[in-house]
Amino acid sequence: MTIFENSLIFVELHDSEIPWLKIFTKEPYKELSECDMAIRKALFDTALLIEQEMLIYFQPEKINWASFGNMLPRVHIHIQARFKEDSYFPEPMWGVKQREFAAQLPPLAPFLESLAQKMHKLF
Amino acid sequence: MTIFENSLIFVELHDSEIPWLKIFTKEPYKELSECDMAIRKALFDTALLIEQEMLIYFQPEKINWASFGNMLPRVHIHIQARFKEDSYFPEPMWGVKQREFAAQLPPLAPFLESLAQKMHKLF
Repeated sequence: MTIFENSLIFVELHDSEIPWLKIFTKEPYKELSECDMAIRKALFDTALLIEQEMLIYFQPEKINWASFGNMLPRVHIHIQARFKEDSYFPEPMWGVKQREFAAQLPPLAPFLESLAQKMHKLF
Repeated sequence: MTIFENSLIFVELHDSEIPWLKIFTKEPYKELSECDMAIRKALFDTALLIEQEMLIYFQPEKINWASFGNMLPRVHIHIQARFKEDSYFPEPMWGVKQREFAAQLPPLAPFLESLAQKMHKLF
Protein backbone atom coordinates (compact mmCIF):
# COMPACT_ATOMS: atom_id res chain seq x y z
CA MET A 1 0.00 0.00 0.00
CA THR A 2 1.48 3.34 -1.08
CA ILE A 3 0.88 6.02 1.54
CA PHE A 4 2.77 8.91 -0.12
CA GLU A 5 4.51 9.74 -3.36
CA ASN A 6 6.07 12.71 -5.09
CA SER A 7 8.44 13.10 -8.06
CA LEU A 8 11.45 11.69 -6.15
CA ILE A 9 10.24 9.02 -3.73
CA PHE A 10 7.32 6.90 -2.61
CA VAL A 11 6.50 5.36 0.77
CA GLU A 12 4.95 1.92 1.22
CA LEU A 13 3.51 0.14 4.21
CA HIS A 14 5.18 -3.23 4.85
CA ASP A 15 2.85 -5.99 6.01
CA SER A 16 4.12 -6.72 9.53
CA GLU A 17 3.12 -7.03 13.18
CA ILE A 18 5.04 -3.79 13.86
CA PRO A 19 4.74 -0.31 12.27
CA TRP A 20 7.10 -0.70 9.29
CA LEU A 21 7.40 1.66 6.33
CA LYS A 22 9.65 1.48 3.27
CA ILE A 23 10.88 4.52 1.34
CA PHE A 24 11.75 3.89 -2.32
CA THR A 25 13.29 6.19 -4.90
CA LYS A 26 10.97 6.77 -7.88
CA GLU A 27 13.82 6.10 -10.30
CA PRO A 28 15.59 2.86 -9.40
CA TYR A 29 19.19 3.10 -8.13
CA LYS A 30 21.25 0.21 -6.85
CA GLU A 31 23.15 2.05 -4.11
CA LEU A 32 22.45 5.14 -1.97
CA SER A 33 25.65 6.82 -3.19
CA GLU A 34 24.36 6.60 -6.78
CA CYS A 35 21.33 8.78 -6.01
CA ASP A 36 21.71 12.52 -6.58
CA MET A 37 21.70 14.82 -3.56
CA ALA A 38 18.06 15.90 -3.93
CA ILE A 39 16.88 12.30 -3.94
CA ARG A 40 19.10 11.36 -0.99
CA LYS A 41 17.84 14.38 0.96
CA ALA A 42 14.24 13.36 0.22
CA LEU A 43 14.98 9.81 1.43
CA PHE A 44 16.70 10.90 4.66
CA ASP A 45 14.25 13.72 5.45
CA THR A 46 11.35 11.31 4.97
CA ALA A 47 13.03 8.66 7.12
CA LEU A 48 13.57 11.21 9.90
CA LEU A 49 9.98 12.42 9.73
CA ILE A 50 8.69 8.84 9.88
CA GLU A 51 10.98 8.12 12.83
CA GLN A 52 9.80 11.21 14.73
CA GLU A 53 6.13 10.48 14.06
CA MET A 54 6.55 6.82 15.08
CA LEU A 55 8.28 7.87 18.32
CA ILE A 56 5.41 10.21 19.22
CA TYR A 57 2.52 7.98 18.19
CA PHE A 58 3.69 4.45 19.07
CA GLN A 59 6.20 5.24 21.85
CA PRO A 60 8.38 2.32 20.74
CA GLU A 61 11.45 1.01 22.52
CA LYS A 62 13.64 1.89 19.51
CA ILE A 63 13.48 2.89 15.87
CA ASN A 64 15.37 0.69 13.41
CA TRP A 65 16.65 1.80 10.00
CA ALA A 66 17.92 -0.54 7.29
CA SER A 67 18.80 -0.34 3.62
CA PHE A 68 19.83 -3.73 2.19
CA GLY A 69 18.45 -4.45 -1.27
CA ASN A 70 20.20 -7.81 -1.58
CA MET A 71 17.16 -9.55 -3.05
CA LEU A 72 15.72 -6.45 -4.73
CA PRO A 73 18.84 -4.48 -5.79
CA ARG A 74 17.04 -1.14 -5.69
CA VAL A 75 17.48 1.58 -3.06
CA HIS A 76 14.84 1.47 -0.34
CA ILE A 77 15.02 2.31 3.36
CA HIS A 78 13.11 0.37 6.02
CA ILE A 79 11.91 2.31 9.07
CA GLN A 80 10.56 0.16 11.89
CA ALA A 81 9.10 0.90 15.31
CA ARG A 82 10.40 -1.79 17.67
CA PHE A 83 8.92 -2.95 20.97
CA LYS A 84 10.24 -5.11 23.78
CA GLU A 85 7.21 -7.33 23.24
CA ASP A 86 7.57 -7.75 19.46
CA SER A 87 8.49 -11.17 18.09
CA TYR A 88 12.16 -10.41 17.42
CA PHE A 89 13.31 -7.73 19.90
CA PRO A 90 16.20 -7.11 20.56
CA GLU A 91 17.13 -8.97 17.36
CA PRO A 92 16.60 -7.18 14.04
CA MET A 93 13.32 -8.09 12.31
CA TRP A 94 15.41 -10.36 10.08
CA GLY A 95 16.86 -12.26 13.05
CA VAL A 96 15.80 -15.21 15.17
CA LYS A 97 12.25 -15.14 16.54
CA GLN A 98 12.27 -14.62 20.31
CA ARG A 99 8.63 -14.89 21.34
CA GLU A 100 5.00 -14.52 20.23
CA PHE A 101 4.11 -10.89 19.53
CA ALA A 102 2.50 -9.34 22.61
CA ALA A 103 2.77 -5.55 22.17
CA GLN A 104 -0.34 -3.39 22.56
CA LEU A 105 -0.30 -0.84 19.72
CA PRO A 106 -2.59 2.05 18.86
CA PRO A 107 -4.39 1.70 15.51
CA LEU A 108 -2.28 2.19 12.38
CA ALA A 109 -4.80 4.02 10.17
CA PRO A 110 -4.82 7.40 12.00
CA PHE A 111 -1.02 7.33 12.10
CA LEU A 112 -0.75 6.76 8.36
CA GLU A 113 -3.27 9.49 7.61
CA SER A 114 -1.50 12.04 9.82
CA LEU A 115 1.91 11.03 8.43
CA ALA A 116 0.76 11.46 4.82
CA GLN A 117 -0.43 14.99 5.66
CA LYS A 118 2.91 15.84 7.27
CA MET A 119 4.80 14.46 4.29
CA HIS A 120 2.81 16.64 1.92
CA LYS A 121 3.84 19.64 4.06
CA LEU A 122 7.48 18.50 4.08
CA PHE A 123 7.72 18.55 0.27
CA MET B 1 39.55 -0.95 16.40
CA THR B 2 38.95 2.78 15.81
CA ILE B 3 40.00 3.80 12.31
CA PHE B 4 38.91 7.46 12.42
CA GLU B 5 37.57 10.02 14.85
CA ASN B 6 36.84 13.72 15.01
CA SER B 7 34.79 15.91 17.36
CA LEU B 8 31.43 14.53 16.12
CA ILE B 9 31.87 10.86 15.20
CA PHE B 10 34.17 7.86 15.29
CA VAL B 11 34.44 4.84 12.99
CA GLU B 12 35.14 1.31 14.19
CA LEU B 13 35.97 -1.89 12.39
CA HIS B 14 33.55 -4.71 13.20
CA ASP B 15 35.12 -8.15 13.51
CA SER B 16 33.52 -10.05 10.60
CA GLU B 17 34.22 -12.17 7.55
CA ILE B 18 33.07 -9.21 5.41
CA PRO B 19 34.23 -5.56 5.30
CA TRP B 20 32.00 -4.05 8.01
CA LEU B 21 32.41 -0.62 9.60
CA LYS B 22 30.35 1.09 12.30
CA ILE B 23 29.96 4.86 12.62
CA PHE B 24 29.15 6.14 16.12
CA THR B 25 28.32 9.62 17.34
CA LYS B 26 30.86 10.91 19.88
CA GLU B 27 28.07 12.04 22.19
CA PRO B 28 25.56 9.25 22.72
CA TYR B 29 22.05 9.69 21.28
CA LYS B 30 19.31 7.10 21.28
CA GLU B 31 17.74 7.93 17.93
CA LEU B 32 19.01 9.49 14.68
CA SER B 33 16.36 12.21 14.86
CA GLU B 34 17.76 13.33 18.25
CA CYS B 35 21.16 14.19 16.74
CA ASP B 36 21.66 17.76 15.56
CA MET B 37 22.04 18.42 11.85
CA ALA B 38 25.85 18.68 11.92
CA ILE B 39 26.18 15.28 13.56
CA ARG B 40 23.65 13.69 11.23
CA LYS B 41 25.45 15.17 8.22
CA ALA B 42 28.75 13.79 9.53
CA LEU B 43 27.16 10.33 9.98
CA PHE B 44 25.57 10.25 6.54
CA ASP B 45 28.55 11.79 4.70
CA THR B 46 30.84 9.24 6.35
CA ALA B 47 28.49 6.39 5.50
CA LEU B 48 28.39 7.50 1.86
CA LEU B 49 32.17 7.80 1.68
CA ILE B 50 32.61 4.33 3.18
CA GLU B 51 30.05 2.94 0.73
CA GLN B 52 31.80 4.50 -2.26
CA GLU B 53 35.23 3.33 -1.14
CA MET B 54 33.95 -0.19 -0.46
CA LEU B 55 32.32 -0.32 -3.91
CA ILE B 56 35.59 0.65 -5.60
CA TYR B 57 37.94 -1.49 -3.55
CA PHE B 58 35.97 -4.67 -2.83
CA GLN B 59 33.56 -4.64 -5.79
CA PRO B 60 30.83 -6.18 -3.63
CA GLU B 61 27.45 -7.42 -4.82
CA LYS B 62 25.68 -4.82 -2.63
CA ILE B 63 26.26 -2.38 0.20
CA ASN B 64 24.06 -2.78 3.27
CA TRP B 65 23.25 -0.01 5.78
CA ALA B 66 21.63 -0.55 9.15
CA SER B 67 21.01 1.45 12.31
CA PHE B 68 19.32 -0.61 15.02
CA GLY B 69 20.68 -0.03 18.53
CA ASN B 70 18.23 -2.42 20.18
CA MET B 71 20.86 -3.98 22.43
CA LEU B 72 23.07 -0.88 22.65
CA PRO B 73 20.55 2.04 22.56
CA ARG B 74 23.05 4.47 21.09
CA VAL B 75 23.09 5.75 17.50
CA HIS B 76 25.49 3.86 15.25
CA ILE B 77 25.31 3.01 11.57
CA HIS B 78 26.58 -0.29 10.16
CA ILE B 79 28.02 -0.24 6.63
CA GLN B 80 28.71 -3.65 5.13
CA ALA B 81 30.09 -4.86 1.81
CA ARG B 82 28.09 -7.95 0.84
CA PHE B 83 29.10 -10.74 -1.54
CA LYS B 84 27.18 -13.56 -3.18
CA GLU B 85 29.64 -15.94 -1.54
CA ASP B 86 29.39 -14.55 2.00
CA SER B 87 27.80 -16.71 4.69
CA TYR B 88 24.44 -14.92 4.74
CA PHE B 89 23.80 -13.42 1.28
CA PRO B 90 21.09 -12.50 0.27
CA GLU B 91 19.94 -12.49 3.90
CA PRO B 92 21.04 -9.58 6.12
CA MET B 93 24.11 -10.37 8.25
CA TRP B 94 21.68 -10.89 11.15
CA GLY B 95 19.69 -13.51 9.22
CA VAL B 96 19.93 -17.25 8.67
CA LYS B 97 23.32 -18.60 7.62
CA GLN B 98 23.22 -19.79 4.01
CA ARG B 99 26.64 -21.33 3.41
CA GLU B 100 30.30 -21.34 4.42
CA PHE B 101 32.03 -18.10 3.51
CA ALA B 102 33.79 -18.47 0.15
CA ALA B 103 34.40 -14.93 -1.15
CA GLN B 104 37.90 -13.94 -2.28
CA LEU B 105 38.60 -10.47 -0.89
CA PRO B 106 41.53 -8.09 -1.27
CA PRO B 107 43.38 -7.30 1.99
CA LEU B 108 41.60 -5.04 4.47
CA ALA B 109 44.59 -3.03 5.78
CA PRO B 110 45.29 -0.92 2.64
CA PHE B 111 41.57 -0.17 2.38
CA LEU B 112 41.38 1.07 5.97
CA GLU B 113 44.50 3.18 5.55
CA SER B 114 43.24 4.83 2.36
CA LEU B 115 39.77 5.32 3.87
CA ALA B 116 41.17 7.04 6.96
CA GLN B 117 43.09 9.46 4.72
CA LYS B 118 39.95 10.24 2.72
CA MET B 119 37.95 10.78 5.91
CA HIS B 120 40.52 13.29 7.15
CA LYS B 121 40.06 15.16 3.85
CA LEU B 122 36.26 14.99 4.14
CA PHE B 123 36.25 16.76 7.52
